[in-house]
Amino acid sequence: MYLDPQSLAPSSSPATPAPRPLRVGMIGIGTVGAGTFRVLARNQAEIAARAGRGIEVVVVCARNLARAVDVVGTGVALTNDPLLVATHPDVDVVVEVAGGSGPARDWVLAALRAGRHVVTANKALLAEHGTEIFAAARQHGVVVAYEAAVAGSIPIIKALREGLTANRIEWLAGIINGTTNFILSRMADAGLGFAEALAQAQALGYAEADPTFDIEGIDAAHKLTLLAALAHGVPLQLHKVHVEGITQLQAIDMVCAERLGYRIKLLGVARRRDDALAQGLELRVHPALLPATHLMAQVNGSMNAVMVQGDAAGSTLYCGAGAGSEQTASAVIADLVDVARLAGGAPTQHGVHAQPIAAAPAPAVLPMAATRTRYYLRVPVADAAQGCAQVTQALADCGVPLQTLLQHHEGPGGVGDLRAGQRHVVVLTQVALEADVDRALARVAGAAGVHGAAVRLRVELLA
Amino acid sequence: MYLDPQSLAPSSSPATPAPRPLRVGMIGIGTVGAGTFRVLARNQAEIAARAGRGIEVVVVCARNLARAVDVVGTGVALTNDPLLVATHPDVDVVVEVAGGSGPARDWVLAALRAGRHVVTANKALLAEHGTEIFAAARQHGVVVAYEAAVAGSIPIIKALREGLTANRIEWLAGIINGTTNFILSRMADAGLGFAEALAQAQALGYAEADPTFDIEGIDAAHKLTLLAALAHGVPLQLHKVHVEGITQLQAIDMVCAERLGYRIKLLGVARRRDDALAQGLELRVHPALLPATHLMAQVNGSMNAVMVQGDAAGSTLYCGAGAGSEQTASAVIADLVDVARLAGGAPTQHGVHAQPIAAAPAPAVLPMAATRTRYYLRVPVADAAQGCAQVTQALADCGVPLQTLLQHHEGPGGVGDLRAGQRHVVVLTQVALEADVDRALARVAGAAGVHGAAVRLRVELLA
Repeated sequence: MYLDPQSLAPSSSPATPAPRPLRVGMIGIGTVGAGTFRVLARNQAEIAARAGRGIEVVVVCARNLARAVDVVGTGVALTNDPLLVATHPDVDVVVEVAGGSGPARDWVLAALRAGRHVVTANKALLAEHGTEIFAAARQHGVVVAYEAAVAGSIPIIKALREGLTANRIEWLAGIINGTTNFILSRMADAGLGFAEALAQAQALGYAEADPTFDIEGIDAAHKLTLLAALAHGVPLQLHKVHVEGITQLQAIDMVCAERLGYRIKLLGVARRRDDALAQGLELRVHPALLPATHLMAQVNGSMNAVMVQGDAAGSTLYCGAGAGSEQTASAVIADLVDVARLAGGAPTQHGVHAQPIAAAPAPAVLPMAATRTRYYLRVPVADAAQGCAQVTQALADCGVPLQTLLQHHEGPGGVGDLRAGQRHVVVLTQVALEADVDRALARVAGAAGVHGAAVRLRVELLA
Repeated sequence: MYLDPQSLAPSSSPATPAPRPLRVGMIGIGTVGAGTFRVLARNQAEIAARAGRGIEVVVVCARNLARAVDVVGTGVALTNDPLLVATHPDVDVVVEVAGGSGPARDWVLAALRAGRHVVTANKALLAEHGTEIFAAARQHGVVVAYEAAVAGSIPIIKALREGLTANRIEWLAGIINGTTNFILSRMADAGLGFAEALAQAQALGYAEADPTFDIEGIDAAHKLTLLAALAHGVPLQLHKVHVEGITQLQAIDMVCAERLGYRIKLLGVARRRDDALAQGLELRVHPALLPATHLMAQVNGSMNAVMVQGDAAGSTLYCGAGAGSEQTASAVIADLVDVARLAGGAPTQHGVHAQPIAAAPAPAVLPMAATRTRYYLRVPVADAAQGCAQVTQALADCGVPLQTLLQHHEGPGGVGDLRAGQRHVVVLTQVALEADVDRALARVAGAAGVHGAAVRLRVELLA
């Protein structure tokens, strides 16, 4: 039921022949690849009508050809040579959904050099090799589109690149890793410890057998690298992102955060600073306390959300599924339709997908010590009263203003066990400098009566 | 600091001259027009870099020329003739931000017939005359872009038209009128009655002196008409939208909804039905009970939010400021940048902005009687026990299954006054047919001991 939109309009221009279908070569037919193929097939008519031309997968590269046949049937050419797909003469656009930042770089560069557009879901590849890859795309007059690389089905790349293009972006903050959001939601809502929550996540398929990339915040850092480049016009600088994962979080911190009116999420933050103390870009991934009543704090399970503050738009929030076969496919296909609509136009049209160009020198990424925010500190102490005095003295001596102080007790059986156990001094500061908090924590560590490593979490008010 | 992106890339194509700026003619320099002018000026360099060319306002039409000079200065041609701007030889795109669905139709059609693109914030115009206007755009090979017509700075039109283009949209639901959201938030959070909350809204500038369009749901209906056409491929059918405003809501309903675990919002719903009872599209604007824990229920004040359920993407949620000078300007300029990027390409590129074409026959809009949802009913009664019996009997006789029943008392001083006053039977049904609820309410109205008109509100679970 493919309709040519041209045929519906009495047009003043001479009759144009129906554009031929956009021919797609896919590298990878796993979760995302299979989802892409399925949705392209199922919604073929709608997609063709909206794109103005059909979109056809003509060749697929898979490691497991038998599995590939199960997904794509017998009408599609199959190969296990990615470079064959990347440079195939009958392909207009290469969909790279195999993942990994090693060989994928070669495949993508080969495709670009052969004059093929590339649509990818590969955040690791672009975070690490994006500078080279986008330059190659620009050089060869083709596009690299990556909506599927960040936040699943939420069209956040398009929102930043186009919907909010009138704005100077002041900051963005995102819950952009579903695995860790699921784990933290279970810790907060079911009182689980980290190990138990991770095990549940693995059992339910929300975490990999090797969950390192997710729980150490690396995946979130890849995605933040892409978002920051788009929003703030900075180069892709993965190595400059300060990264802390969630492995040090304990149930007691979820409980204390809640008592104080907050909820802990793994957050990626890219925030412009232009004050007396620093001018540049904060770029950091770490667990953060969000006000419990804020919408972002209530994005739970494996959902993702990105909030953006623009100077004209004010703040906008985008939430949805951060991963999933068809969810990610939705983003891949949105990019394919964009490419289809390019219709071989001049490179200027490709400007939409080119690496963002900053109009002014891009802000420099600030060192972590220059971060300015509120802090949650938890210090295990031998004696509660002495501990309070020592902690408050250290904060005062280092210029860290205090907001709230709690004395928290946890019996041997954990939170809620009233038997004699470990006491903690829990502090919420006012706005302070990271460097000053570092010094205060160093003093606290040396204080008599402090019983172990202090925990420091940053607060994000999303304002 | 305008950078030509072409100059940064060693390109294999012959050197292309820098594209000339996109020339804009504005009709209207009020709240949205002034905001647009200001943001274009302030973020000129960024916008030019992202668009690949400058964007210049060359002529402005205003009723009050003195006011216009205050906003645009002396470097821009001024006129009070909209048709002069619409057909101006030095204008590429006409920005229509004067509003109203009368003369604006003539200006927009004149612009399109003169081969000018149009960017508009005018939801009333498009809801009423969009069919004719989009047809004229298609006929003349130009675009009509309307991001600013719905949900302020939230790029929802782009999300539906492009970001979610891979999907068959199952339903969408939106809080798309900031005036009524502000009023309902005050009623729920401060316990105000409708009149008092409206007065506060007017005093704070969230409601007009004549608030009819907003409080009667008409503005929301205009916007829903546009969203539904885009999402479901139906023609623009404003006259088929069932519209109920918020003027009948009382503080007691906010209280009862909260007791039941819900929060009341004015909602626009476009939901596909494909079950044994109905096949088509529910299209309705009315106050609705949302589960209090749902993110949508916590979108308060004058904020807007739209939730979309796609068959591949799952559900995505978009929140932000629904109105405001620079917020709406952000959307106008996003459209201008899209037009700038078209760079005079073939009509196929314009397909992105053309009226959506359905690949299959568009679903028919269902009569309201076919609506299937849960209901909140409040019946004022003389005697609580007899009232309960009468109401439950009427529901049972009409096939409306009951979920929860409360007896609610309100003394003469209103909610919380324990002196003898008015008793109400409050019911939450399970899923029921509107037609059956109509019949049940008709029976209840005739029952002895019923003390006044029953209130019926629909529940929306957003699932």
